[in-house]
Amino acid sequence: MGVTTPVGFRAAGVTAGLKASGKRDVALVVNDGPKHAAAAVFTANRVAAAPVLWSRQAISDGRADAVLLNSGGANACTGPEGFTNAHTSAEQVATALGIAAGDVLVCSTGLIGVPLPMPQLGAGITTAVGALTVDGGPAAAEAIMTTDTVPKQAGHVSEDGWSIGGMAKGAGMLAPGLATMLVVLTTDADLPADALDTALRAATRVTFDRADSDGCMSTNDTVALLASGASGQVPDADVFTAALTGVCATLARALIADAEGAGHEIAVRTVNAATEDDAVEVSRAVARSTLFKTAIFGQDPNWGRVLAAVGTTRAAYLPDDLNVTINGVQVCRNCGIGEPREAVDLSGRQVDVEIDLGAGTATATVLTNDLTHDYVHENSAYSS
Amino acid sequence: MGVTTPVGFRAAGVTAGLKASGKRDVALVVNDGPKHAAAAVFTANRVAAAPVLWSRQAISDGRADAVLLNSGGANACTGPEGFTNAHTSAEQVATALGIAAGDVLVCSTGLIGVPLPMPQLGAGITTAVGALTVDGGPAAAEAIMTTDTVPKQAGHVSEDGWSIGGMAKGAGMLAPGLATMLVVLTTDADLPADALDTALRAATRVTFDRADSDGCMSTNDTVALLASGASGQVPDADVFTAALTGVCATLARALIADAEGAGHEIAVRTVNAATEDDAVEVSRAVARSTLFKTAIFGQDPNWGRVLAAVGTTRAAYLPDDLNVTINGVQVCRNCGIGEPREAVDLSGRQVDVEIDLGAGTATATVLTNDLTHDYVHENSAYSS
Repeated sequence: MGVTTPVGFRAAGVTAGLKASGKRDVALVVNDGPKHAAAAVFTANRVAAAPVLWSRQAISDGRADAVLLNSGGANACTGPEGFTNAHTSAEQVATALGIAAGDVLVCSTGLIGVPLPMPQLGAGITTAVGALTVDGGPAAAEAIMTTDTVPKQAGHVSEDGWSIGGMAKGAGMLAPGLATMLVVLTTDADLPADALDTALRAATRVTFDRADSDGCMSTNDTVALLASGASGQVPDADVFTAALTGVCATLARALIADAEGAGHEIAVRTVNAATEDDAVEVSRAVARSTLFKTAIFGQDPNWGRVLAAVGTTRAAYLPDDLNVTINGVQVCRNCGIGEPREAVDLSGRQVDVEIDLGAGTATATVLTNDLTHDYVHENSAYSS
Repeated sequence: MGVTTPVGFRAAGVTAGLKASGKRDVALVVNDGPKHAAAAVFTANRVAAAPVLWSRQAISDGRADAVLLNSGGANACTGPEGFTNAHTSAEQVATALGIAAGDVLVCSTGLIGVPLPMPQLGAGITTAVGALTVDGGPAAAEAIMTTDTVPKQAGHVSEDGWSIGGMAKGAGMLAPGLATMLVVLTTDADLPADALDTALRAATRVTFDRADSDGCMSTNDTVALLASGASGQVPDADVFTAALTGVCATLARALIADAEGAGHEIAVRTVNAATEDDAVEVSRAVARSTLFKTAIFGQDPNWGRVLAAVGTTRAAYLPDDLNVTINGVQVCRNCGIGEPREAVDLSGRQVDVEIDLGAGTATATVLTNDLTHDYVHENSAYSS
């Protein structure tokens, strides 16, 4: 399943020559309607890329007819010329499709501080428009990959006749604030823009916002949701939000599973917190501890490093009440020594860390990765 | 120069068998007076080790006669038994020296969650007391090393007849909040406890608090300052604070220079900030970006990653005003492309990154390291 699973959408993924590798690098997703309601969330980074500045304006009226995405260049920190280039590419899409440029969202990913090669991008847009099909989702998902090793798609088909599809890219610089990567979500449900916006913010808050591979927030992150209304169905808001959250959760897990150089996928779950914010703060502090992350890489259930990270937070707890369980073994009990650390098996790819604050009933999970030689290699050897 | 440079101090560093390597692992610093004023700052980590809990109480009256330090075990997350062990070791020092246990500070470093081997530590204390000499500073500095590759000592001799000495350990888990490692500072100046406390907080605020190797805050960090008054000199507060700050800065640089697995020492300087807090926040955000740190390891002057980190802060600035200079080359001008990145030479060990916020006149520098294969190796292969 993907962005062309819902009725009313066409997509394409083509090669424009932005990537030196010659792989697909321009994607286009078009909403053929009949409705064109949309919502989007963007990076909280104050150094926002030109396409984010453009798309924030474009989405402000709650309508989007198309999303243009390119890999091979972030168009970030490129000055007024960068914004002009983002605008120009939206105009090119609009002209080719006979729509308004203000209804075209633009997303870019790649190296910061390098101008987009506009002749190649323009030609790529023409090719992409010609290649649009109702089963173009997989090609589009391929075209937005950078250091991703696999395309990421997900979807949900309701028994009531509506569906949701999505694609995502992002394998480094994954951290929260708001959206944390490039994601396009589509639905043929018939929902107005404000309902889409509410559902999207609810879904991203507990999914992409809690995927934190390396603590670094991008300048370009965008999650867009387009609704064609082509199913004619108007789902209940809670049902739609739950389904959208499920699709986002699948994509977020796929991002963490494919994170640059990762050897383990780590779910840091904080339980019995006084508030959900506390649980997120504690889980995130552990997820961002480089010492904890290197220990997991070394298959060392070093719970002292978990506690050292928990101790840096402002969450409500009494230190003596802290318990830590790693892959089912309670290695730390009441802030002291629990079961033998030798009982913890970290040979598998999935790691579950549970921190019990003993301070309430709230729970939250942050997904992260270990810190490995491959992460250092990928991020030192290649500019991105 | 070291902790026995000032008059009135003896020190020792001996082997008690806490380290498997058989190297020195117990240090003792004794203030023979005539005065015994003291001050100390401790980790801001809420999961504080037993020796920190003990020493916080012991220093509260502004007097300390001795500092016992051990490597080979942090005595952190060791429960009520851990606190009893810290207390017991202070009693052992006090009995041997004929002083009060409440005037003995205790510091430990090593693996979290492992009880101290008290028989060996007790024997080590006896040996250390017997080995105390007025030139024992270097041996003490050796005995507190963990993954440090060199002992760290520094000092200042005033023309007015007073002096300051210091030693430090810490090669990982270096991050701020308050104190960030084990440091003992001595002086033969005649200053009361409140003057020492004021000077110590002023000095650590701009030195150890701005050394941030890997963003991880320890459970055990302690910086203690003991004054013997043996010089009979009462220095001016500002003069003393400046000298103390100089000694702390030297030790902080030595810690960063010897940080685990580091290939570069990086000074992240933020200039033209609206406030000093803003400058620290911006410098620290860059210093904690794993993507920035891996880029420096790869000798890649990736200024986009600097801006991406700056963009996550709340500091006052207009994004379009941001400039970034790396080793003297202004690679980013007005948030856009500046001089060619090829002009930046990162082959040396020292890297200077300057971020110009264009928002005021305040400045601050945070010292950090690159993120290297050796860091990952040291912290994944060895429990600490």
